[in-house]
Amino acid sequence: MNSHVMTLPKGFKAAGMAAGIKKSGTKDLALVVSEVPCVAAGTFTKNNIKAAPVRLCMQRLMDSSALYGIVANSGNANACTGEQGKTDALRMAQVAEQALGLPENALFVCSTGRIGIPLPMSTVEKGIRDLAPSLRTDGGVDASDAILTTDTHRKVITRTVKTAAGDVTLSAMAKGAGMIEPNMATMFTFILTDACVDQASLQEALSESVANSFNRISVDGDMSTNDTVLCLANGLAGNAQWSSSHLQWKAFKEVLDEVCLTLALDIVRDGEGAKKLVTINIEGAATTQDAECVARSIANSLLVKTSWVGNDANWGRVIDCIGYSGATIQEDRIDISYSDIPAVRGGLGISGGDEQLHAAVGSEAFSVQVDLHMGEGAATVYTCECSEEYVQINI
Amino acid sequence: MNSHVMTLPKGFKAAGMAAGIKKSGTKDLALVVSEVPCVAAGTFTKNNIKAAPVRLCMQRLMDSSALYGIVANSGNANACTGEQGKTDALRMAQVAEQALGLPENALFVCSTGRIGIPLPMSTVEKGIRDLAPSLRTDGGVDASDAILTTDTHRKVITRTVKTAAGDVTLSAMAKGAGMIEPNMATMFTFILTDACVDQASLQEALSESVANSFNRISVDGDMSTNDTVLCLANGLAGNAQWSSSHLQWKAFKEVLDEVCLTLALDIVRDGEGAKKLVTINIEGAATTQDAECVARSIANSLLVKTSWVGNDANWGRVIDCIGYSGATIQEDRIDISYSDIPAVRGGLGISGGDEQLHAAVGSEAFSVQVDLHMGEGAATVYTCECSEEYVQINI
Repeated sequence: MNSHVMTLPKGFKAAGMAAGIKKSGTKDLALVVSEVPCVAAGTFTKNNIKAAPVRLCMQRLMDSSALYGIVANSGNANACTGEQGKTDALRMAQVAEQALGLPENALFVCSTGRIGIPLPMSTVEKGIRDLAPSLRTDGGVDASDAILTTDTHRKVITRTVKTAAGDVTLSAMAKGAGMIEPNMATMFTFILTDACVDQASLQEALSESVANSFNRISVDGDMSTNDTVLCLANGLAGNAQWSSSHLQWKAFKEVLDEVCLTLALDIVRDGEGAKKLVTINIEGAATTQDAECVARSIANSLLVKTSWVGNDANWGRVIDCIGYSGATIQEDRIDISYSDIPAVRGGLGISGGDEQLHAAVGSEAFSVQVDLHMGEGAATVYTCECSEEYVQINI
Repeated sequence: MNSHVMTLPKGFKAAGMAAGIKKSGTKDLALVVSEVPCVAAGTFTKNNIKAAPVRLCMQRLMDSSALYGIVANSGNANACTGEQGKTDALRMAQVAEQALGLPENALFVCSTGRIGIPLPMSTVEKGIRDLAPSLRTDGGVDASDAILTTDTHRKVITRTVKTAAGDVTLSAMAKGAGMIEPNMATMFTFILTDACVDQASLQEALSESVANSFNRISVDGDMSTNDTVLCLANGLAGNAQWSSSHLQWKAFKEVLDEVCLTLALDIVRDGEGAKKLVTINIEGAATTQDAECVARSIANSLLVKTSWVGNDANWGRVIDCIGYSGATIQEDRIDISYSDIPAVRGGLGISGGDEQLHAAVGSEAFSVQVDLHMGEGAATVYTCECSEEYVQINI
């Protein structure tokens, strides 16, 4: 994922710079803009406390007649900043729209970083004006770097769909890495495509892709005030407009799914202090909801996540989570495996196999598989271990 | 709390020893016995996966005609051990009953430690037979030490109620320290008293005391399979039988409340890796349930708990929890203070005060006070920070 290039779809340009919002002096301001108006879709944090830029994005997604792109910053979340925050988010968009010669209401605004501190607007405004002339077709990686916070590496992906009219491209950039929980977290993903698509179909497809990717990951169980996934489609690939009934839609949706899941897993892999990607697979639950409860109990248990640091399967802590998850269970029906190595059958530990289990949990990617033998409900959640480094990062 | 003596109530004896269940070679087997049968009350883990000894205790509380005491071990939880676990829990009681010359069904059985491994029964049985002759009126501290696991200090308390017939004594021992969450966790508390009390009144009083103490603490959000609070009253103080309608009941209940809350807070103070006792006070919620949701969201947030390690008030992470707690809120009504120092008013950070807030969060005990200004709902939860040491202990 630590790519040095990012091929933007036709008609998109991007740029990123260090404007001085972050004390560290690293890149903190990004622009991503299409030369023609886009069809747009978005999903946002479900936290009842939403940052001003999130509310502005939600409004523009409903109201705006011509959306061209995104202005984003890291280092400050513009959350819990009251009326001033609303004014500042709007002003970010206006300054960028003017600098780029765009109509009003043309840009989304995304901010990530510390909560509760007003944006340093003179720095932000000067930065936007300085950055606007630098938009380039190869500026994707700079923009992508400028939205990172505690991420340790760049997260970009490009995929294409072959069509009779030529390739349709999807490019996306994402940021993690803390406050990550199903239902959106401190993460951004901006997906750009030159596909020509119907808006309602795009929104439906994006919501579904997000439900099966970003809403399936958990780093620490916290849900941020600023999470945003945006998809912008400018239609310049020249395909006839696709909607969900179109023959090509399945191929497009598959690529969209792949882009979302790849970036979601990359966010988990880059979770604060994380070195392992853990897939929690629940089967045989009485209901889908039960399966999700069990998966999230395990994925969010500190005791489970710390045990993985030491390569310890410790299924006792896993079965403890299953017990308090709220799901309907029968202790003597529970099976637990790690990467297909059986650890528990019928609620009882299997003797032997300790070395294999230790090796499985010691690898960079492993799965915890639970079969409750109560019904047909199933769910998958992706998570990581909780190391001392996680604590150090967040002190 | 690190007391060197524990005055047992009249007619109680106790003993503790290193039987070899724990690899560390520290004390791991305890007996607490009354010379006459007791009135008993208990509360147990709400985890759907309950250890065999927990189920045995619940059954004896309902069925037994004469309860005399408790046999307990640390180092092995006898949880997720199937039919063998049930047989072993019963056998622990039988061996102790025979060694002490007690009738059948006379003892409660409590086990704490690792899940999923059968008890080493020959070690346990030999230990019980060796320990039985050592019961002493001053054996309380030995028994108390033998139920500890990752606790760093002994948790005992003795209180008296003055009556015309002389003093009534309550003595209690407890263990923490990980897997602690409201609704019982890996914790034991054994409360002994020579009061003569009505059983139904005792159970009602204990349940209420536990609801306001042990069920209000959270170390790491996990809920154990083995949590048990037992209260044994042998009536040897010579008071006329008390029930909840008795004039002296209020005084007895107050002492019971004090014993439970003192031990509960001591468990939090001794939370794995914890150095701070944090009281989360929620006021002004639309409902009591909303207040509890908010209190527990904050108390269980890794991001909040790690921020306290560095003495950082970081109210942004607190307000983020309030937002995703599920409670009905209005962002611009939220007030947050730390030990009465205002940090947020009407959803906005208060400038200045940073040094005072830093000092407050830097102290060994502080409070996080939230007023939602939505109604009359209130709740209190006690918790601690989450340090690197917590992770180290649980790897």
